[in-house]
Amino acid sequence: MKRYAIGIDYGTLSGRAVLVDVETGEELAESVCEYPHGVMDTMLNGKIPLEPDFALQHPQDYLDVLLHIVPRVVQQAGVSPDEIVGIGTDFTASTIFPVRADGTPLCFLPEYENNPHAYVKLWKHHAAQKQADRINQLARERGEKWLDRYGGKISSEWEFPKILQVLEEAPEIYDDADCFVEASDWIVWQLTGKLTKNSCVAGYKGIWHKIEGYPSEDFFAALHPKMRTVIKDKMPTPVSPIGSCAGELEEKMAARLGLIPGIPVAVGIVDAHVCAPAVKIDGPGTMFLIMGTSSCHMVLGETEESVPGICGVVEDGMLPGYFGYEAGQCCCGDHFAWFIDNCLPASYYEEAVREGKNIHKYLREKAEKLYPGESGLVALDWWNGNRSVLVDSDLTGVIVGMTLLTKPEEIYRALIEATAYGTRLIIETFRNAGIAVEQLIAAGGIPQKDPMTMQIYSDVLNMPVYIAGSANGPALGAAIYGALAAGGARGGYDSIKEAAQHMGKLKDTVYTPDAARAAVYDELYAEYKMLHDYFGRGENDVMKRLKAIKTRSRS
Amino acid sequence: MKRYAIGIDYGTLSGRAVLVDVETGEELAESVCEYPHGVMDTMLNGKIPLEPDFALQHPQDYLDVLLHIVPRVVQQAGVSPDEIVGIGTDFTASTIFPVRADGTPLCFLPEYENNPHAYVKLWKHHAAQKQADRINQLARERGEKWLDRYGGKISSEWEFPKILQVLEEAPEIYDDADCFVEASDWIVWQLTGKLTKNSCVAGYKGIWHKIEGYPSEDFFAALHPKMRTVIKDKMPTPVSPIGSCAGELEEKMAARLGLIPGIPVAVGIVDAHVCAPAVKIDGPGTMFLIMGTSSCHMVLGETEESVPGICGVVEDGMLPGYFGYEAGQCCCGDHFAWFIDNCLPASYYEEAVREGKNIHKYLREKAEKLYPGESGLVALDWWNGNRSVLVDSDLTGVIVGMTLLTKPEEIYRALIEATAYGTRLIIETFRNAGIAVEQLIAAGGIPQKDPMTMQIYSDVLNMPVYIAGSANGPALGAAIYGALAAGGARGGYDSIKEAAQHMGKLKDTVYTPDAARAAVYDELYAEYKMLHDYFGRGENDVMKRLKAIKTRSRS
Repeated sequence: MKRYAIGIDYGTLSGRAVLVDVETGEELAESVCEYPHGVMDTMLNGKIPLEPDFALQHPQDYLDVLLHIVPRVVQQAGVSPDEIVGIGTDFTASTIFPVRADGTPLCFLPEYENNPHAYVKLWKHHAAQKQADRINQLARERGEKWLDRYGGKISSEWEFPKILQVLEEAPEIYDDADCFVEASDWIVWQLTGKLTKNSCVAGYKGIWHKIEGYPSEDFFAALHPKMRTVIKDKMPTPVSPIGSCAGELEEKMAARLGLIPGIPVAVGIVDAHVCAPAVKIDGPGTMFLIMGTSSCHMVLGETEESVPGICGVVEDGMLPGYFGYEAGQCCCGDHFAWFIDNCLPASYYEEAVREGKNIHKYLREKAEKLYPGESGLVALDWWNGNRSVLVDSDLTGVIVGMTLLTKPEEIYRALIEATAYGTRLIIETFRNAGIAVEQLIAAGGIPQKDPMTMQIYSDVLNMPVYIAGSANGPALGAAIYGALAAGGARGGYDSIKEAAQHMGKLKDTVYTPDAARAAVYDELYAEYKMLHDYFGRGENDVMKRLKAIKTRSRS
Repeated sequence: MKRYAIGIDYGTLSGRAVLVDVETGEELAESVCEYPHGVMDTMLNGKIPLEPDFALQHPQDYLDVLLHIVPRVVQQAGVSPDEIVGIGTDFTASTIFPVRADGTPLCFLPEYENNPHAYVKLWKHHAAQKQADRINQLARERGEKWLDRYGGKISSEWEFPKILQVLEEAPEIYDDADCFVEASDWIVWQLTGKLTKNSCVAGYKGIWHKIEGYPSEDFFAALHPKMRTVIKDKMPTPVSPIGSCAGELEEKMAARLGLIPGIPVAVGIVDAHVCAPAVKIDGPGTMFLIMGTSSCHMVLGETEESVPGICGVVEDGMLPGYFGYEAGQCCCGDHFAWFIDNCLPASYYEEAVREGKNIHKYLREKAEKLYPGESGLVALDWWNGNRSVLVDSDLTGVIVGMTLLTKPEEIYRALIEATAYGTRLIIETFRNAGIAVEQLIAAGGIPQKDPMTMQIYSDVLNMPVYIAGSANGPALGAAIYGALAAGGARGGYDSIKEAAQHMGKLKDTVYTPDAARAAVYDELYAEYKMLHDYFGRGENDVMKRLKAIKTRSRS
């Protein structure tokens, strides 16, 4: 009998299911469905205006999408429901909302349906920046040692700034909530009938540590008197390691999905981290780089080390049994899109049309012909601040070396190179902390579509760069965790290593460094690093002063 | 009887004559004629390929143009030839060529007609860079004190690099030349029948000093044995101060021009410096700024001071009786044009078309709305290197402060502001050397067309900015010198002050600084200065290293 796993990936705008052959990793069917309410960032349910930087979702969407995509993949693949051995899910994070003890979201209750704070605060809800600033300041003042695990700063995107915002701006919601739950855990709750918190989101977004637990009650009390017992009162469940089984598919949900009750369901996991086994990562030594609008760098270690400027280190955070280290760059694709939208001259568009080419392709062809160093340009990739390793959102972009002959493709390539230098600096920081990085596996839109950029990365990093084999990395990863939840005895796998080897995928394409180009990039990287330290480490805080002047000038 | 003067301006691409009322400065007629051979920078006479960086002209063009434009203005204005009391000319410089003792250009001789070195080396002939480098190196080694008068470096555009290039690459031309003559002196020679060298070009482009004369024979001998007696052999005539009369219009030329012989003809002068009286400058305290593709800063002093990084200080160089100080920025309009050509996105062009606006106007309207500091950007205006005060052509452009929300108009405005900061730094350098600068008069295309830029300059410099009143500044200035050559007794003026007051012109528009904006610019200028010194004074020579890498990568 064939064995299949279903992986369900909850992204920012839509949910996606894949049905995967457990033996081969083959993806037999795929279904995508957009959230009916999308991202609500100006109006709640089309009628209540939202404050700036809000980004909400409606939890009903998660269920509606689920009921659409799961039956669809089973039907499309033409498999029998009894051949499905496991289900895994992944979710954006921190994507968090208040619920009753039975899991009912407060926003489902008529009395709260018009209250924005009763809804899901999506990962990119940035309206809790004030709260994040206070958490960071207090933690620094108190010398909280957990701060080091997060590179000295937590983000407004994380759990506690969002919870504190609810407490301050809608105390009735805070009081009435039995629990603040991550969407990644809530969806597993809906599938299994019980709440199971996952170590990935708790560790990377909830300041939770396997041994030390959450920050102390004293810390929370200093933040806000009512928060002293927030963990006990509002986040009650123990945390389960990723890779374990959360429970079995409960009857009612099985019926609605057209599946058989009792299928093992994996503990939830964040949509980035779930990808590791999907690209065959099964241990330390390989960096996994997700290149999207921003980029995220993940690597495994056997031990917990202090690495400056990382986004987090979490045991069982990225792959069961290892310490998962995460770092990040605040802009990658966003950077290139900014250039295309704001800097690419009309003449290039016209020429692209004349040659019948897509403008991206036209530009890349020009940029690709340039030899490293030929432009005389070097840039700092800080258009959206710097996450790793400086952790400073007030840093801004720089380009050095323009002349009257500088061409758009030269600037474009310099921006791409700058992101590669930024990645190299992150890698060197990991290595200096004793964490091996010997090769790179890249996933996301850019690695799939842009060989030039990947070759630049390989040359700048002087390492082989492999490319994720599936276009549905997160969903495939979720399916792998589904197979792991099943275990060998029930048709899945007993170890993540085994599951990754069978079901993970890489493309045949490998980008390998060219020695001559890599040597030029060594020189350019040295220039990048010098400018990085000059502008980033306090020698000349011009960027911060310019931001302060800007704020004054705009007011 | 009315009295008129004719001013003849020899520019890079064309010659222009104006006929001016000596009493009022009114320009009654104007005529322009392009040089038939234009600038020969790839082919000589359409058949002999030229080396890179050559820029030649044909001296016959200067005569052909003269015979066209002078009769035309007299006819157009409908004045009687006997009402013309003086003629003045100005020319680009150093625009130099070898001639026989009678003034015949060697390129007129059949044996040399295919030899590029027999032709006029236009000011922007840059193929003598090697020679300029050697002159600078030798001067530094020998501690030649004249080097200080030129900010420590002479340019490949000047006389001696060009003459040395002829000697090295076409020794037969060097040997056969009786004289290397500046076009500014040659055209006066054609008008008066005798060679009169002018103090302006000799001082600013020929390393000549009123008291110390030219560099020593020892210096020239060390440069090249055959050059020991270059001054005596090839540049024989004494130098006459600008503002004096070179002679009278000789008969044959008068006949060809339809004028009366005997009209006083002014000593030649460079096309930038000639403008001073045309904008009513008659003494120290006012900076005269010519803003074109690059920009040129001129100011007068009563004494000769050492000012770091200027282009030159010459007695009788800019206005008779004063020390004329010149400084410069290597790109101004070129800078903005680079941005328009290479960085302005298609969407802006489309929107400009939709609104029925010229793209420059459309962009300026957006940039104009920005308050100082609002963009968070600061740039170093070194796209074409830095002339004053760093004298370093290997410096390149920088922009600091970009974010994902940075708009094209913000970058555009930052580039304009950067050139204003550069001008402020030049002004502060003059002031530190004891030379007063209290107001600014701007001439050139930008001041005529771009109120936003002029307001930015006024706010950045915290000074009133006046605008040249004539669109034909150099030709008007030449006419003023024509009236001065005539002297009061012959219907002109006895002093340049008097001539400037009557014939010079300013627009009614004055740009005055806004105190609040000026205060923000003080802060931004401090940032500019810190970056200027960091990148420009050796703290981080990244630009030079990038240029070196670029050169290697392109080879």
